[in-house]
Amino acid sequence: MGEKQMLMIPGPTPVPEKVLLAMAKHPIGHRSADFSNIIAQVNKGLKWLHQTNNEILTLASSGTGAMEAGIINFLSPGDKVLVGDNGKFGERWGKLCQAFGLDTEIIKAEWGQPLDPEVFREKLTADTNKKIKAVIITHSETSTGVLNPLEAINKAVKDHGEALIIVDAVTSLGATNVPVDQWGLDVVASGSQKGYMIPPGLGFVAVSEKAWKAYETAKLPRFYFDLGKYKKANAKDSTPFTPAINLYFALNTALELMQEEGLENIFARHQRLTKVTREGIKALGLKLYAPDQYASNAITAVATSPLNAEDLRGYIRKTYDIVLAGGQDHLKGQIFRIGHLGFSCEREMLTVLAVLKESLATLQA
Amino acid sequence: MGEKQMLMIPGPTPVPEKVLLAMAKHPIGHRSADFSNIIAQVNKGLKWLHQTNNEILTLASSGTGAMEAGIINFLSPGDKVLVGDNGKFGERWGKLCQAFGLDTEIIKAEWGQPLDPEVFREKLTADTNKKIKAVIITHSETSTGVLNPLEAINKAVKDHGEALIIVDAVTSLGATNVPVDQWGLDVVASGSQKGYMIPPGLGFVAVSEKAWKAYETAKLPRFYFDLGKYKKANAKDSTPFTPAINLYFALNTALELMQEEGLENIFARHQRLTKVTREGIKALGLKLYAPDQYASNAITAVATSPLNAEDLRGYIRKTYDIVLAGGQDHLKGQIFRIGHLGFSCEREMLTVLAVLKESLATLQA
Repeated sequence: MGEKQMLMIPGPTPVPEKVLLAMAKHPIGHRSADFSNIIAQVNKGLKWLHQTNNEILTLASSGTGAMEAGIINFLSPGDKVLVGDNGKFGERWGKLCQAFGLDTEIIKAEWGQPLDPEVFREKLTADTNKKIKAVIITHSETSTGVLNPLEAINKAVKDHGEALIIVDAVTSLGATNVPVDQWGLDVVASGSQKGYMIPPGLGFVAVSEKAWKAYETAKLPRFYFDLGKYKKANAKDSTPFTPAINLYFALNTALELMQEEGLENIFARHQRLTKVTREGIKALGLKLYAPDQYASNAITAVATSPLNAEDLRGYIRKTYDIVLAGGQDHLKGQIFRIGHLGFSCEREMLTVLAVLKESLATLQA
Repeated sequence: MGEKQMLMIPGPTPVPEKVLLAMAKHPIGHRSADFSNIIAQVNKGLKWLHQTNNEILTLASSGTGAMEAGIINFLSPGDKVLVGDNGKFGERWGKLCQAFGLDTEIIKAEWGQPLDPEVFREKLTADTNKKIKAVIITHSETSTGVLNPLEAINKAVKDHGEALIIVDAVTSLGATNVPVDQWGLDVVASGSQKGYMIPPGLGFVAVSEKAWKAYETAKLPRFYFDLGKYKKANAKDSTPFTPAINLYFALNTALELMQEEGLENIFARHQRLTKVTREGIKALGLKLYAPDQYASNAITAVATSPLNAEDLRGYIRKTYDIVLAGGQDHLKGQIFRIGHLGFSCEREMLTVLAVLKESLATLQA
């Protein structure tokens, strides 16, 4: 039954058949009028999804490439930045900033717990010389299923007045309300294999006017990820370098499907899936790794102690061909993660809960 | 007849149906054993195609991303480099090196003419203090259809003894013999939408032992394109960041097709296509833009004066739905370019020649 796999990880997420077939079309020339039309449509859809009039740049890269572009275009070596770190992707932000020689202050919270907005506010309030150039956080922490309090942290950033807010929205965009213009988010990075419902290979960066001002004086070296080049090309419905054409075909179709469903409905569906999953997990007597009030709408992490989470994952994979995600780094064996992001529905949540019930009974027998 | 387009540009190149269908499969988890097997097979195929035992790193990026990775991993700010520039892609190498603060000496030749190995030899011989850290050239210059004398330039580099040879093989690999180990090419960058016969979105960098030594002391900042991370992951048949999964499906199938055909047969086919095209163009009374002895096997550029090349291209596109490439930058209107790279056959060359004959007769009537 190897052909009937069910993918329930936080990325790649399930891809609608219509999207797969759009992607399988023969490539067309990327400098043609037909492709320019696709770029124009995609850009319109991206702005809709981000609830913004800001420019959104599409890169041939993974989400990490979009994160890198979100840093190197707006900062200079030695710039002071605050980085939130309460999981693997927050940790990645820190490493990325350090690789580019930024004066990086890491603000930690325990894995499984949210970042504390008050710690950010304290640092920002104390920064009367306006040395802090950016506050950089992960919205939905994919490694733990925690949704960080972006709105509250961003308020502290806005009160500071100078610093940019730079956000990894990789598993929040398309699952959770991320009103870019309303909140004034300066740089929002995301990747295609998540809420977008298409395979990996595209990265996205939404950039505010304030961030474009920072771009003018930012001194970190850049070429492939130079967003100014993408902005200039975007104005002509083009790209500075060869785009990942077939992923654009897929994206165009996926954005159409998303617009048919509507943003409010998409968010409501993800909330329902999260609720069903979390209540089901509690009913099974398992422990939710993230607290209810900071639960990501994209992913639910579940602690299995004393059972080894990898044993449970392996059994479910072998017996039912459902792929769940494991814990990362020190959480390997301690938790498993259920993806309910993108093209996911209630039926699948009931399926995975039924399978978990049977599997726990068997493994604990 | 919009659905019967014939794509004859130097990238994206034609994609076999089998490859499109492989790409349309539903993504699988990139941390699964099944995907590790695909990475292992792909890496084997890439080594075969590059005729090398060197590590080859696959990036989610366009070819320009691979070029950037080929620079920032092996050089430090202020390093002296020689860059060959006889077309748009040589020019791009120069801009890329300058963007990263390298001490960049551009060695020019006219567009349509090859780089002169003697100029490189002279500079390298005079460099007794071994200040030159790298010689950077484009093998097949896509903008003009010129195949640069890589082997001769590389000999001068080898006689220098210290400098790395860094090559853009984007439209030579898979069309022309590029024996990486035999020639001792240190860094070879390429992109998926060319000889590989798959859509754009993957970049490749082959790295020699000598280049890995340079990596250890190279100081340009890097994160997403840090090839050391890719090497470490490759050893476990993995990737440091989410790979473009469906393009790997396509690549795996395309590399199988290429291995079935055999390297010698692939090169011979491209040579035949080049010969047929060039002889046909001469017979039509048009002027070949690149000299016979430096003709790229991937692309033939044709001068149309006094006819405007864009008028000819437009007529052919409209009347026959064949997409030819135009001239880039100052060559726009002066030349058009016929791609015969990758999944191309004699029938298509005879088609385009027949169409050209009719079109010229009509437009010159």
